[in-house]
Amino acid sequence: MYDLIVIGGGPAGLAAMTYALAKRLDVLLIGTGLSGRAGDRQHYAGQSMPEELVGEAAVLSLQRHLAASSERIHTDTVLGLFKRDDVFGVQTEDTVRHAHAVIVATGVKPRMLGLPHEWQYVGIGLGYSITTHAQAVIGRDVAVIGSNAQALRGVAELLQTARSITLIAPDPGQLGSVLGQRLQMHPKVQLLEGYHIQEIEASGGAVHAIVVAQRDEVQRIPVAAVFVDLGLVPNTQLVRHLVQMDTQGFIIVDAQNRTSLPGLFAAGDVTSALGEQILIAIGEGARAAVSAYDYILAQRLRLSVATLCAT
Amino acid sequence: MYDLIVIGGGPAGLAAMTYALAKRLDVLLIGTGLSGRAGDRQHYAGQSMPEELVGEAAVLSLQRHLAASSERIHTDTVLGLFKRDDVFGVQTEDTVRHAHAVIVATGVKPRMLGLPHEWQYVGIGLGYSITTHAQAVIGRDVAVIGSNAQALRGVAELLQTARSITLIAPDPGQLGSVLGQRLQMHPKVQLLEGYHIQEIEASGGAVHAIVVAQRDEVQRIPVAAVFVDLGLVPNTQLVRHLVQMDTQGFIIVDAQNRTSLPGLFAAGDVTSALGEQILIAIGEGARAAVSAYDYILAQRLRLSVATLCAT
Repeated sequence: MYDLIVIGGGPAGLAAMTYALAKRLDVLLIGTGLSGRAGDRQHYAGQSMPEELVGEAAVLSLQRHLAASSERIHTDTVLGLFKRDDVFGVQTEDTVRHAHAVIVATGVKPRMLGLPHEWQYVGIGLGYSITTHAQAVIGRDVAVIGSNAQALRGVAELLQTARSITLIAPDPGQLGSVLGQRLQMHPKVQLLEGYHIQEIEASGGAVHAIVVAQRDEVQRIPVAAVFVDLGLVPNTQLVRHLVQMDTQGFIIVDAQNRTSLPGLFAAGDVTSALGEQILIAIGEGARAAVSAYDYILAQRLRLSVATLCAT
Repeated sequence: MYDLIVIGGGPAGLAAMTYALAKRLDVLLIGTGLSGRAGDRQHYAGQSMPEELVGEAAVLSLQRHLAASSERIHTDTVLGLFKRDDVFGVQTEDTVRHAHAVIVATGVKPRMLGLPHEWQYVGIGLGYSITTHAQAVIGRDVAVIGSNAQALRGVAELLQTARSITLIAPDPGQLGSVLGQRLQMHPKVQLLEGYHIQEIEASGGAVHAIVVAQRDEVQRIPVAAVFVDLGLVPNTQLVRHLVQMDTQGFIIVDAQNRTSLPGLFAAGDVTSALGEQILIAIGEGARAAVSAYDYILAQRLRLSVATLCAT
C-alpha cells in the first residue's frame, strides 16, 4: 500500500513527486514518459537560435532531482482508477496498486487536424499552443486554424510578433464576438472562413506552406508556422466516474487542488482550460502534493483535514 | 514607461520576470536581493548531509536564466506605489519609475522572538517555517514556539519526524482546539504553557539548547532545532492603501492572481497564509505574469481584458 500515487509525468506530476519525496511519503509516479507537453519545442525555417520555452529549465531541474529516485517512477499506462473503503486502486496492464491518496496530472491532448502524417510536422512549424510559441515567430507569416475564444486570443497575441496571420476558421465559432470582429479588421489578419487545411508542405526540416481548400477552391499559402487551436481535450477518462468536471470536461478543483472526491487531487492542464504554462503546472502540482500530504497526515493522526489545518 | 514592474526577487518574482521576458515585455524587477526566503537553509548539530529545500533547484534555474537580463534587475527598496490615470508609479529612494502594470511579490516576514542576536541562530537550528524544515530533524529533539493553528499543524507534522517536541505556548491560542488537545496527550509532546524563550544556546556552529522561563522558574532544554511560529507578517505596506486584504493582512487575489485594483497583480506568500512553498510561489508568479500580460495586451489593442480572454 502506497501513501500516494501520482499519475502523469508532466511538470505538475514531477513537482508533486518532488514534494512528496521530500516529505518522505511512500510514493510512486506512473506515467507514459517524463516532461509531458513541455518537450514540445519548435524549430522553424531559417531560425538561428533554438526556441526556449518558459520553465523548461525548471522542469529539467525537477527531472534531474528525481533521477535519484528512479525506482519510484514507473513507465506505464494507467487503465483504471477506483476507490473502495478509503483506499484507491490504480490499475495498469499487469497489476493493481493501492494507495491512500492519488494525484491526477494527466494533462490534455490538443484536437488535431486529422491530416495523414500530421505528427511529422510537429516541432518543425506545426504546434498546438499559440501562447507557448508566439514569441518564436517574430516577423514571420503564420497560420492559425480555429475560431474559438482561445484561438482568437492567440491571434491577438500573434499580432505582437508575426508579420501576417492567416486565420482559417472551419466554422464561425466566436468570429462574431467583439474580439473576432476587431481581428478581422486588422491589416495583419487575413480571414479564410469555411476553409480547411488539405496539406502541410515542409522541406529541409521545416514547414514552409499550407494548402487550404473550400469546396473546389484551393489556395497555397506560404507560412513558417501553423498553429492548430481547435480546443484541448483533457485526459480524464480515468476519473470521469469519480469526480466533478466542468462543461468542457476539465476536472474541477478548489484552491488547494482538491477534487470532489476526498483523497483524489488533480493538477496541471487537466484541471483548467487556462493553464498551458509549465511554471503554473509546477505550482499546481506542488499544491496538490501539499494537500495530499495534509490528507495523509490527518489520516495517520485519525483527524479530519479540517481539524488538522484549521487556519 | 515600462510595460511591467515586478516588486520582489523571491521565487514568485523570479518566475513572473521569466515569463514577462519571454513575452518580450519591457519589464523591470526591483528587489532587495534575489531568492527571497528560499535561501533559508538550515544546518543542525551533527548533520551529515546539507538540507535540501523543495524547489531550490528550480529557483536556481530561474536565477541562472535571468542572469542574461541583469540590466533589468534593480537592487533597491521600493518606498511607494501609486496609480494615476491608468499608470503606476513605483518610487525608490532616487527616482520614480512608471509602468502600465505592477506585480507585487514582496513576501512575508516571520514574527521573531525578539531575542538579542536572534539572527545569529537562523540557519544553524533556528527557523521560522516548520513545514520547510520538518524533514531535516528526523530523530531529533526540537522545540516549537507558538500556539496558533499553523504552529499546531507544524507540531503534527513534526510528530512524523522528530524524537520529541517541546511546545512552548506563550498564550493559550488554539491549544483548546481538537488538534491542540490531541497534541497535548501525545507522548512525544511536552507542553510548556505561559513560558517564553530567554536564551538560545549554540556552540560549534549549531543550536544545542534553549532556556525557557515562566516568572522565576527557569528550565534548560537540550534541542537541535527551534521553530518559531508566531505568525507571518505580509510585506504589504506598499499596497495597503490600494487593494483589498484579508483579516490577517494578506493581499486578496482571484484565481488569476489579480488584486482588487486593475493592473495590480500579486503572487507568493504575500497573498496567502498557506503558501510557504517555493514551487507554489513559482506557479503563482507565472500566473500573475500571464494575467499582467493579458492586461497589457488588452490595453495595446484597446480592448477590455474580458473581451480579450472570453474563454
